[in-house]
Amino acid sequence: LKKNEKESFRTEFLDLHPTDQIDIFKQMSEEKRKRVYDYLEPIEFAGIFQGLALAEQKTVFSELEDAFALNMLNELAADDITDFFGQIPDGIASFLLSKMGKKEANNIKQLLSYKEETAGAIMTTEFITLAPKDTVLAVMERLREEGMDAETIYYLYVTNDEDKLIGIVSLRELIISVADDTIEDLMKEQVISVSPLTDQEEVSTIIKDYDLLAVPVVTNDGKMIGIVTVDDIIDVIEEETTEDIGQLAAVKGALDLNVNALTATKKRLPWLVLLLFVGMFTAGLIGRYEGTLAEVAILAVFIPLIADMAGNTGTQSLAIVVRGLALEKFDRKGIVKLLKRELLTGGLMGIVCGLLVSVITLVIPGANLILGSVIGLSLFITIVISTLTGTVIPLIIHRFKIDPAVASGPFITTINDLVGLFVYFSIATTLIHYL
Amino acid sequence: LKKNEKESFRTEFLDLHPTDQIDIFKQMSEEKRKRVYDYLEPIEFAGIFQGLALAEQKTVFSELEDAFALNMLNELAADDITDFFGQIPDGIASFLLSKMGKKEANNIKQLLSYKEETAGAIMTTEFITLAPKDTVLAVMERLREEGMDAETIYYLYVTNDEDKLIGIVSLRELIISVADDTIEDLMKEQVISVSPLTDQEEVSTIIKDYDLLAVPVVTNDGKMIGIVTVDDIIDVIEEETTEDIGQLAAVKGALDLNVNALTATKKRLPWLVLLLFVGMFTAGLIGRYEGTLAEVAILAVFIPLIADMAGNTGTQSLAIVVRGLALEKFDRKGIVKLLKRELLTGGLMGIVCGLLVSVITLVIPGANLILGSVIGLSLFITIVISTLTGTVIPLIIHRFKIDPAVASGPFITTINDLVGLFVYFSIATTLIHYL
Repeated sequence: LKKNEKESFRTEFLDLHPTDQIDIFKQMSEEKRKRVYDYLEPIEFAGIFQGLALAEQKTVFSELEDAFALNMLNELAADDITDFFGQIPDGIASFLLSKMGKKEANNIKQLLSYKEETAGAIMTTEFITLAPKDTVLAVMERLREEGMDAETIYYLYVTNDEDKLIGIVSLRELIISVADDTIEDLMKEQVISVSPLTDQEEVSTIIKDYDLLAVPVVTNDGKMIGIVTVDDIIDVIEEETTEDIGQLAAVKGALDLNVNALTATKKRLPWLVLLLFVGMFTAGLIGRYEGTLAEVAILAVFIPLIADMAGNTGTQSLAIVVRGLALEKFDRKGIVKLLKRELLTGGLMGIVCGLLVSVITLVIPGANLILGSVIGLSLFITIVISTLTGTVIPLIIHRFKIDPAVASGPFITTINDLVGLFVYFSIATTLIHYL
Repeated sequence: LKKNEKESFRTEFLDLHPTDQIDIFKQMSEEKRKRVYDYLEPIEFAGIFQGLALAEQKTVFSELEDAFALNMLNELAADDITDFFGQIPDGIASFLLSKMGKKEANNIKQLLSYKEETAGAIMTTEFITLAPKDTVLAVMERLREEGMDAETIYYLYVTNDEDKLIGIVSLRELIISVADDTIEDLMKEQVISVSPLTDQEEVSTIIKDYDLLAVPVVTNDGKMIGIVTVDDIIDVIEEETTEDIGQLAAVKGALDLNVNALTATKKRLPWLVLLLFVGMFTAGLIGRYEGTLAEVAILAVFIPLIADMAGNTGTQSLAIVVRGLALEKFDRKGIVKLLKRELLTGGLMGIVCGLLVSVITLVIPGANLILGSVIGLSLFITIVISTLTGTVIPLIIHRFKIDPAVASGPFITTINDLVGLFVYFSIATTLIHYL
């Protein structure tokens, strides 16, 4: 990319796959980027712009000249513009909207009004609709003319005079049918659709289960207003996974690799400080049993063991519920079944671990059968309770939509620590004369 | 589904979306299922069979009559048969293979030979190839005749006389072009492809980044042997996510909701027992400091706090690396950058948490400034080390492909517990006369 080599740059660069163009563009200095804006047409640059991360889009957008920027926006898909507008100040967004074509602007305003993480917010409004009386030949002609504009032409949607969705034809079915068949003959009337208010996680489950490339978004009165495509869904799955992992590790919103230490600290430190305060409760709890500890110092030896096992058991159950909630919906029957199973599982694991630890303890110098029994019994109770905590808390959170951070791994671990150590010291204090 | 109502059942049932047929079939009793085998043709039942989970497929397969079963197998896509054969005894699989068409059988044998979790193992061998000299019209004719057989016709692959992949045409491009154009004119020569040995996670990154519906699988000598489609990739992403979550919570292979308590216990208990033994090291470590503890009992109060904070910090870093490895590849430069950042982040978080805990400790009865300093300093060192452990261990695991269970959250937590408590008691023992 040197000065005055516009033509050779254009030939080589535009020959690359769009994704590779984006990769190369991302590595450029500001000076080189400006030369790219100069060398490419707005329509060519639009392809690169839509592939950038939102933060990069903001930087690049500020470097563009107004006319170029506006022309480029007109070339972007409505859902990409909507995502970008969600990131810039409202004032600038409305200014840009006022400069865009009216139909496009209305589309985007509509999209901006849907709540985040719903089908309405992730759908695109570009799709192809057919009339039931169209013939295959006529449709093919039309696709030939305008096909490239829509984000996907692999499904064609059949609507009636009132824009209501009445059927669907896949491009595949269209191809293998005879020229003078009508769409009515071909179309499937049973269309799987979602509402603009459907949660994105549910949309992704539908696309997955039915192996679709896209699903139509239909309002309550049956009007079709957009489609959600499979590539959007892959992004959704990734977003939801990141949320789940954040929940297990208390790093919500801090999983980004490409931030500096200060930013990473800002995001992670609040969680640690919060956990530090919660941890003080554990310290306070043990403080109450200082008398017991002073008398039987060996009890301290098993504090981390009890605490760790409480944490581990709870985290197992938490992971199962978090993953379960991501992959399927629970009804009341399912919840009762899960609780019963976890209780029984916790009981079985508790018996085995409790017996094991009692036996192992005996080999430690200074321990006796009573101490072994105290630890074994405590561990059994702790494991049963932790299994239940790890199951019930995320379910409650999910039901009442409390901030899911409360159900994150470290919080459940700390609660289980408290419970486990309370059980342990209560039993030990009761039996202190035998230790 | 009553006796002797074959026709009405067929009409109603076959009118449903395949996914709904599968859902209904899954709920049926054995008696009803047998009636379904009777009422449907093998080709119709194949669609239901491929939608069942592998365990269900085994049950159903054993209920089918031999001829019906074989006819049905012949209708399934090669990758679905391969998945199923992977689950049944080798003897039965080879018997079935010997009864199938030779070409199909060879296909499946080839697929079975690829290692799990590679492109070769998840690809399908059904795809459409064109010759460069074909005209658009001829290709459309051909699609009309055989189009429905291939798992996807949205990309058409252009191969030369030696079966080498030389270009790609999307169905979309085909539709919008003129009847007597040749494929050569239309095709893109830059094809993104993967090798049969490419890891499935990498394949999914490619499909995601390039927004593809399918990617061709090409051997080292350029021959095209299959395609991996976007719906397979969604399954892969889900599988890998489940692995990642298992890694964070030590529940590898036990995230299934639909198993009974005994099965769940069998899968989760081994992890807990292993962690119990690892936890005994922590107990052993503290045991070595029983003298210190007997003298200054209040030290025990902060054992869980130090251990929990070590665990929390390590889990944060672990989650970031696990997620990072899932979403992008690290080169040496990236790893050095990440390590530097985590070290700095750990240092910053350690300073804040260390100072905080020193101050809070002062309000606890029986504590003094020296105790506060011991705890603060220990926490600082612990947080720095735990951040590094949580970053380095999963990276090493990833590099040397050791069993990733070793890098799971609870193991890293336990290691960090050991380190943290060792630091704590070392400092406390050194300064014991001032406490």
